[in-house]
Amino acid sequence: MDKINDIEIKPLGKSNFITPLRMQYTQNGVKKIWDLIRIHNSVCIIIFNTTRKVLVFVKQFRPAVYFAGIPDKDRQTTIDTVKYPPEQGITIELCAGIVDKNVSLEEIARIEVLEECGYDVPVSKLERIISYRSGIGVCGDNQTLFYAEVTDNMKVGKGGGNLEEGEYIETVEMTIPEAKKYLSKGVVLSPGGLLFGLLWFLQNKANTC
Amino acid sequence: MDKINDIEIKPLGKSNFITPLRMQYTQNGVKKIWDLIRIHNSVCIIIFNTTRKVLVFVKQFRPAVYFAGIPDKDRQTTIDTVKYPPEQGITIELCAGIVDKNVSLEEIARIEVLEECGYDVPVSKLERIISYRSGIGVCGDNQTLFYAEVTDNMKVGKGGGNLEEGEYIETVEMTIPEAKKYLSKGVVLSPGGLLFGLLWFLQNKANTC
Repeated sequence: MDKINDIEIKPLGKSNFITPLRMQYTQNGVKKIWDLIRIHNSVCIIIFNTTRKVLVFVKQFRPAVYFAGIPDKDRQTTIDTVKYPPEQGITIELCAGIVDKNVSLEEIARIEVLEECGYDVPVSKLERIISYRSGIGVCGDNQTLFYAEVTDNMKVGKGGGNLEEGEYIETVEMTIPEAKKYLSKGVVLSPGGLLFGLLWFLQNKANTC
Repeated sequence: MDKINDIEIKPLGKSNFITPLRMQYTQNGVKKIWDLIRIHNSVCIIIFNTTRKVLVFVKQFRPAVYFAGIPDKDRQTTIDTVKYPPEQGITIELCAGIVDKNVSLEEIARIEVLEECGYDVPVSKLERIISYRSGIGVCGDNQTLFYAEVTDNMKVGKGGGNLEEGEYIETVEMTIPEAKKYLSKGVVLSPGGLLFGLLWFLQNKANTC
């Protein structure tokens, strides 16, 4: 488990990561404004290892998830990590990545599966399921969901993300019964895309592979 | 259909709607930063009208979705609405609302169903399904999904959102076959939460109600 400490919150100055913008427009004759963020589109992949019959997810510390779980009154400059353990910001997600290269979405998905989970899956084995909007209110970015079946023979690396980019990612495996149990937990630290991908898998693939 | 025109994009100055922040932290001894946005938690509701056997969704113009669909090169101060018709920003979503009152999530869901879709559904008829994170990278906000069965007798208003707050929302009804077809479209202007809610309904409720 990662050790996370010295958490501080500051106003956003100049950022290379997010660009906040204001859209001004007229709707049915009424002038309106809407504040939004420009971010990259992304891909995500629901991965099933057919050798060992397990789904493969990723687990990582997500600052925005951690911060959102802290009540307003305790959102001070320095966050009390005893009262709010960093584990509260550790999500379970689909393997995913942003579209920041001029290659096909399938190729980006292939690179992410290798980088985060260590499986070298051929592009031809990536099944495109659906493209939807990951955000609606503030971000609006497009996310494309893929399905990939992998085998233990395709495992060529450890995964874990791009260490040069400072990614610390762990893979998590779930059997089909464990995945069903996860969906019935009531509260999960996972995005809607994972819930959909998982249910899609259970409905369309779990009985046939 | 709404008439939308005079779309302009500006840098974000002071905003009452979004608060961009920077988190600084140490992970495994390495100093890191992450830029994020503080936004409200929310509820969303998958609604099934048992009188007419239709699912009830909402449809609205979403500036962030519209903007995300415009290529970088055409993201000028003034957006060309002939080249990029505002219809490209019209989403289909679950009835939803932000948690900005000090009442139960069920009560907030009840108010939204009434305000956006016109059904007066008792709080006791709201089934809580799951809480998940709507965003992961930038926002991290919690969203709680409910299920509500309504009847034509519960329809007491037109819905359409809170006009005083400048909301222009249309309701959209889909039969079960239409909803299944929607899920197989390949590209949708809907968030992951709708896809999950819909699939959850098809798997758990469609055959019993």
